This record gives sequence, structure tokens and C-alpha cells, in this order.
Amino acid sequence: MINETHDPDQESWVESANDPDTDFPLQNLPFGVFDRANGAVQQRVGVAIGDQVLDLVEASAQGLLGPHEPALFSGSLEPIMAQRPTVWRSIRRLVSTALRRDTDAGRRAIELRTRVLLPASELTMRVPARRDYTDFYASVFHATNVGSMFRPDQPLLPNYKWVPIGYHGRASSIVVSGTPVHRPRGQISATPAGPPTFGVCRRLDYEVELGAWIGGYNPLGTPESIATARDRLFGLTLLNDWSARDLQTWEYQPLGPFLAKNFATSVSPWVVTREALAPFRCAPYQRPAGDPSPLPYLTDAVDQESGAFDIVVEAWLRTAAMRAQGVPPICVSSARARDLYWTFTQLVAHHASGGCNLGAGDLLGSGTVSGPARENRGCLLELTWRGTEPLVLPNGEQRTFLDDGDEVILRGRATREGFRTIGFGECTGIVLPST
Amino acid sequence: MINETHDPDQESWVESANDPDTDFPLQNLPFGVFDRANGAVQQRVGVAIGDQVLDLVEASAQGLLGPHEPALFSGSLEPIMAQRPTVWRSIRRLVSTALRRDTDAGRRAIELRTRVLLPASELTMRVPARRDYTDFYASVFHATNVGSMFRPDQPLLPNYKWVPIGYHGRASSIVVSGTPVHRPRGQISATPAGPPTFGVCRRLDYEVELGAWIGGYNPLGTPESIATARDRLFGLTLLNDWSARDLQTWEYQPLGPFLAKNFATSVSPWVVTREALAPFRCAPYQRPAGDPSPLPYLTDAVDQESGAFDIVVEAWLRTAAMRAQGVPPICVSSARARDLYWTFTQLVAHHASGGCNLGAGDLLGSGTVSGPARENRGCLLELTWRGTEPLVLPNGEQRTFLDDGDEVILRGRATREGFRTIGFGECTGIVLPST
Repeated sequence: MINETHDPDQESWVESANDPDTDFPLQNLPFGVFDRANGAVQQRVGVAIGDQVLDLVEASAQGLLGPHEPALFSGSLEPIMAQRPTVWRSIRRLVSTALRRDTDAGRRAIELRTRVLLPASELTMRVPARRDYTDFYASVFHATNVGSMFRPDQPLLPNYKWVPIGYHGRASSIVVSGTPVHRPRGQISATPAGPPTFGVCRRLDYEVELGAWIGGYNPLGTPESIATARDRLFGLTLLNDWSARDLQTWEYQPLGPFLAKNFATSVSPWVVTREALAPFRCAPYQRPAGDPSPLPYLTDAVDQESGAFDIVVEAWLRTAAMRAQGVPPICVSSARARDLYWTFTQLVAHHASGGCNLGAGDLLGSGTVSGPARENRGCLLELTWRGTEPLVLPNGEQRTFLDDGDEVILRGRATREGFRTIGFGECTGIVLPST
Repeated sequence: MINETHDPDQESWVESANDPDTDFPLQNLPFGVFDRANGAVQQRVGVAIGDQVLDLVEASAQGLLGPHEPALFSGSLEPIMAQRPTVWRSIRRLVSTALRRDTDAGRRAIELRTRVLLPASELTMRVPARRDYTDFYASVFHATNVGSMFRPDQPLLPNYKWVPIGYHGRASSIVVSGTPVHRPRGQISATPAGPPTFGVCRRLDYEVELGAWIGGYNPLGTPESIATARDRLFGLTLLNDWSARDLQTWEYQPLGPFLAKNFATSVSPWVVTREALAPFRCAPYQRPAGDPSPLPYLTDAVDQESGAFDIVVEAWLRTAAMRAQGVPPICVSSARARDLYWTFTQLVAHHASGGCNLGAGDLLGSGTVSGPARENRGCLLELTWRGTEPLVLPNGEQRTFLDDGDEVILRGRATREGFRTIGFGECTGIVLPST
């Protein structure tokens, strides 16, 4: 479904969108929900373009986006996510046309620019939608690394290559990029048998993930086939699944992580749509010989051919001392989403396979995106191998886990020869001391 | 906080509320959300009284409930749950007064009865609120029974007596009592190592639980002390945590139950408030000698004295054949909520202890309520000991797990000498074949 909205030669009248380094060129057009910093406008839907934001309510009111589309006027992306892919494509085309330099709509928009365009730096972003949240465990490299620390004789459990392992997360504690995160307290035990004490988390970690925002609805009791599951993906964001490793180790048996995860989950504010990502589709991870094939409900020819996305995700770190010294953040890991063992389409099909009703605004985390090499490890637990191999920072500081004042910055981008690179913006958070 | 609203001698002008067998006497006054069956009224808040429902919107509009209370006019209990306990008590007092036989408000209400009172049988009930859903594992008897099937040498993991074990559930698939439940499909493996097949669940189970509806809010990053956690309980309902045991066995390691639970969770429609339950508070489960004391953040004198509720919960079963033969449902188990290892106040304090933001409309399941005796086992997994000891029904049928057409009916009641017994109504669901 690659079309003229992906044409790398098209330019926008918003000059910053033509900067080769921007995350948000005309070919991206991610959706988000913003407030004006002065409080005059709250919870409005916009599209990022260069360092500016197109206010879709104003643009629609000014007739720049064709016939009135009620879904644009809600203060959430949910009503847009609730539409069919044909509507998503149609909105994308209208927004693209209005932001192009060489169209009638674009020329009208230039005249209206003071009404419809806002500097991104003056806006406060919101969580795009909020329904249920599920986190998966789709990187076999992450699962193998973590498993080998805890079960050296059996790093991967027998179900891993059959079942897309996932668990329900906490939706209320999803926060938008930029929200500081308080270090949690909780039960911690020095030994597997206890006794625990209640205290401040000492092994605070991040996890680099992609988050998939779901579109449409399947009724309770009605599964989604692998063929139709593909249409349930509205778009992707960056997701930081903050994790308290010491709490997790003690609490997670037998029912999974709970307080170790639910104190905060950060998402980037701009949802990069599946339409924008169409050129970056690719074949999924090639399972090594000997691995089982996915069961029929989890595979079809389309997914095998183009179910994955060629997206690179990175974690950057900047400590309080680095900020004080003017040392820029450093990239501590980088991994490819195409190395995930399961595609988002498979995650959707699996999630709904028992009849669970997924709906617009649901968020599905990929789980930590790690890869085969050391530099691909998407969390400190892996990077420092459970704290045994400290990370040495440019200013001489060392980290095993996160200190108060540390800022974690996730970045992501999709690249392909012959296409404009599109980015995800940032998903950031500074660690605050325990309250 | 026992007051005149609990006086067993008070009678209602609604005659059915004075029936000694009703679940909903004047002393109960549970809240729910209803639609009129003809569609004329949708999502309105009401209070059950005998076999009738007081429409709080009409009652308020007619001046029967004192000053205008905006929270009553929403189509959800969430705005009521969002209030402080003083407001909950005030509403209860006004409703009680309006339904009493011997008050001015009651006499006015009698004249308005055709406007404000509706037969419960003509209403369709709704899920009372929907935010996040967490399920706990608070019965040590249940945990020990289940653990001894899967780990005979170590039925209880070392963390159990320290951590109130819980996991996030799926909020979107919570359904109200009476909603049929489709048998799910999923991955099933005959052996722990696989390979699995994808097919129809053969070990479908129920779990008898109490559900706690949360009131008020604590901001993200701000824990709730055990002292204030008590005020976060709005009320209780019955909850059936339908479980696909064969799916669960295969999928649950290492991150907990997922598709085995998220195909449906049923709740009873009437929320029995903490005010109604005040006379039935009691000391929590007496930990055997040798068990650790709860850590300080999980205990205080008030909770140790009266943190539990003296509520009996029962599971009843009626198969399709029993229905056809006119055989009534039979009670297959009965257990006491006071036998739970943790109180709801402890569950709230633990849940928020790391800073997780609980809010009005959150639902916390207790986990299966089981007790020390065979007849106290709150699910078929325990009752039939993993299917090895079939249940023999009055008509000669046997059950290890649920068949299509089986109806599960949960009931609950609180009793105390010198007080009216108050009930929870029913939480029912019939198993439909897989779609």
C-alpha cells in the first residue's frame, strides 16, 4: 500500500519538515493528542510535521481536510483508531495534501498557518488513548538472555517458541514521554526463600519496547484471524516498560510481574501509523532450523512475507552529572524490531484467539527489543548481565542499574533505500527519588 | 460505623424488602447500573430494594434524596465511587430514609412509587464501572491446594505468606451476571514439553471470588497507607474468574495467566457497599503459629481487629440436563471470606505501595475463596482434584470440568446475630460452545 504520500521527493511548506534529520517529514505524519501550554486548548488531536504540529480541529474547521470527519474532534485518538483502515488512509491523504507545497490545499493552508500550525515546543503532549494494556515478550534474544540468568540449564521454557508469551499490564499508570518516574518501594529479598524487607528499589531498569496501538473492535467471543488481525494495527510508538528488578524477582512467582511494572510505563506521544510504515514492512525473523513453525492460527503468507517492520530502536542514557557537565546523552543499545520472534499481527491474532475483545485504544507492548549482539540488549538487566558487568559512561561514571536523576531516552526510526527516513520522536523519563 | 440504617427493626414500604429471604432488605441498599428492557432508559444508577429497584435519577429529580447530588446522574457508578466515604454514607442515609415506611420522605416516595420504583425483573443490568482490573490469590487454602497439584514437594512458594500475590487482569472482558460465556479455544499441550495443538478448551472452570470496587484516587507515585487504604473500598460484588485450565497450564510460565483468563470475567450487578457491610466486619484469618507477621506497611490495629468480612460465598451448578428435567441447581461449594489470608485493605495498601494509582472504578478480585474443608473448595480444579475425583450430580451426571450448557451461579450473604442478613444477589453464566 505504498502511494504518493510516501514519495520522497514531495516537500512540505513547513520548512522544518524538509530537514533531512527531522523525525517528522511529510512522509511520516504521526498522530498525537496535545494541550496548549497556556491551557487555552486541551486534548486536541494533531499531526507532527517537522518541529510544528498541525491542529486537526482547526484544519478541519478551515476546510483543509475535506468533508467533516467527526472522529477528529474528540480529545483522544480512540475515535480515529475506531475507524477502518480505509478511513485512516483517507485522513492521511488529506493531511498530506494540506501540508504539501505544491497543492491547492497546501497553498490555502499556508495562508491559514497561524491558525492551524503550532510550534511543537509550546505544546504539552498527552497519552494518545487509554484502554487495556498488554505486554508481550516477543524477543527471543531478550527471553534467552533473561532466562539464562535465572535458569542456566533451560534458558527458554518449552512454550516460548509456540506461544507468544504475554501478560496484562496496568493501563492507569501509562504516562507520556517527559513524565518523571518515581523510584518505587516494595518487598525485596536477598535470598529466594526470604525473609523480605520493604524498602526502596535498588535495581531500577528500563526496557526498550515498541507499543502497538490497536484499531477497530472484535466482539467478545469472536477471535480475529491472522488475515484480519493485520488490519487491527493502527500504529506504533516507543514504550519504556520501567521495571523494578529486585521487586520482580521476589514477587513474580507464580502469577507474573505485578508491582515490579505497574508504577509507570512511558510511551512516546506520536503514533506512527501503519500507513506511514508501509514502505518499511519486511519479512519477519527467520526461525533457525529446528524451531517449530507457528501453528496455523498464527501464520499466513502475507505475514510471512511482510509481517515485520524494519525499525531500529535505541536506548540513550544521561545521568544528572552528565547534564551538569554538559555531556550529551549516549546511546547504550540499539536493536532491530525485525529480530522479534513474533510479529504484531501474530500478537493480535494470539491475543484474540480465545475470544478476548480487543478495541480501539488498546496498547500492546512488544516486550524488550533485543538482538543477538551485546550492543543489541534492550535493558540494563541484560546489558550489565544482572549487574555483574557495569556500564562505563563517557564521564567515568558507572551504572549497573538506574540512579536517581538518570534520564532514559528511547529513540526509533525506520529507514529504507529510496525512502525518507521516518522517526518516532523520543520517549523520555527522568528517575526521581522514592517518595 | 453501625447506625440506624442497619437497624433490623426498620421496615420498608416496598413490601418485598421485608421478606426475610430477600437479599436486598432495607439494611442492604446495593448500587447498580441498569437499562430499562424497552430501551427507554439506558445506563442509570439504581438501588436494589426487595424485588424492586429505586431509580436514583428519578428519586433525586422528585426531591426524595435531599440536595442535588450530581454524581447520581452519570450512567456509571464511577462518579459515586469517586466521592469520599462521608458522601457514600450521606447517600445511603438519604436512600434509606426514602425507602422507610415511617418517614416523611418514605410517605412522599410511596405517592411517587410508579415514577421512582421499577421491578428488577424488567431491567437489564450493566457492569457497574470499568477501569483497571487486578486479580489476587488471597486464599491460602486455594493456593495450597493448587500448589500441591503442581508442586507436591513445595505447595506454597516462599513469597506467599509475605506478598499478597496478584496479577493484572483484562478489564474489557468483564461481563455482567447473565452474560453467556463462550468456551474459548487455545493452545493445549498433553505434555509439559509440548508440542501443543490449537483447539477447544476441555478443562473449563469457574472460580468463586469476591470483587472489591475501589473508591477515590491516589496519584501516581503516591502510595496509600494501611490506615487510609480502608477508605478506598467502595463495596463488594461476586466475581467469577472463568479459567481455561488446559490453556493455563501450558501458557502461564514465566509471566502468569493470560488467555486462560481473559475470555470472560463475570461480576454480579449489585455492589454491596462497605456501609452496608459494616456490621459484618470481623477479625481476619488467624495466621498459624510459625507464619510470619505481615510487614508493617500491611498491618495496623484496625485491620487486625476488623479488616475482614463475615461473608459466605457459594457456587451452584445446573447442567442443561438438570434444566430440562426441572432439577434445581445444587450447591457444590461454600466458603467464608474471613478465611482469606489477606484483607481487602491489605490488598489495596499492597497494590498502591509502589506508587500505582488506583482509582474509582478499579476492580480487585480476591482470588478463589476456598477454605480448609473439601466442601470449601471454590473451583472445580480443587473440588475434583484436577479432574481425578468427579463431582456426582443429583441426576446422576458427573463433572470434572464444565460442559457446554452448564450454568454456574455464585451467591453470597453476610449474616450476624441481631442483624438482617444481607445478600449479594447472583452472579450467573451459562457456558456456550466454542464459536
